[in-house]
Amino acid sequence: MDEFMQAAIAEAELGLQEGGVPIGSVLVHQGKIIGRGHNRRMQQGSPILHGEMDALQNAGRQPAHVYRECTIYTTLSPCCMCSGAIELYGIPRVVVGENQTFMGAEERLRKAGVDVVVLQDETCIRLMETFIQQHPELWNEDIGE
Amino acid sequence: MDEFMQAAIAEAELGLQEGGVPIGSVLVHQGKIIGRGHNRRMQQGSPILHGEMDALQNAGRQPAHVYRECTIYTTLSPCCMCSGAIELYGIPRVVVGENQTFMGAEERLRKAGVDVVVLQDETCIRLMETFIQQHPELWNEDIGE
Repeated sequence: MDEFMQAAIAEAELGLQEGGVPIGSVLVHQGKIIGRGHNRRMQQGSPILHGEMDALQNAGRQPAHVYRECTIYTTLSPCCMCSGAIELYGIPRVVVGENQTFMGAEERLRKAGVDVVVLQDETCIRLMETFIQQHPELWNEDIGE
Repeated sequence: MDEFMQAAIAEAELGLQEGGVPIGSVLVHQGKIIGRGHNRRMQQGSPILHGEMDALQNAGRQPAHVYRECTIYTTLSPCCMCSGAIELYGIPRVVVGENQTFMGAEERLRKAGVDVVVLQDETCIRLMETFIQQHPELWNEDIGE
């Protein structure tokens, strides 16, 4: 598997170990990871620290031209908040681990000209399926069923 | 003026005093502010801490039903990231200080059924106009001109 999706999965697994939602992400610029992160809703009590947002935050302030040369990898289809961030910064490519357990705003991203690739990776699917089965109250807490 | 927009402006002014982008926001639930925040791009080197996102983060984890009874106040028209967050959490009403210096994703919010009210408040406009004039390099840093 692609080393960057592997790094995103490692982030998701780290989140799971911390008792969090197992979703991870890395921001890649010219073949190098410049930000990595995972969902920290539980860990930090934050509704905005989805995996993609955490990766963007950990990349720090970047100039516009850098974002426009990036690919963001995420283990789960990006929700409308994360998709909005991707659109805001003009990130041209998103590699998605899976969209079977949750379908994000992929169509909106495509309409905005973003290249969205979906891997339907078994590890990503299993991470989410297991979490949702074990913690339905956490998964449904914030945006409902 | 509405006390909640006044509170959002106070947040924007606090951000300005800290050397940041003067955009503030408050999240209001049943007549009470449950989260307040301001843009912290400069202060924390964070590309995701726009005013609205900071207010959402500072409100902490909230159940879905609370978001659905909230109004979010923001001194500047919400960008597509912040609009995506508003849509994700099903916040039904947004009060916008102004959209003259920056037009966010208001149309998308309206299409999603969100009630968007724009005040075109002179204080909000002056805060942004002055900042953009004095710091064009900061204003244009991340998403370009």
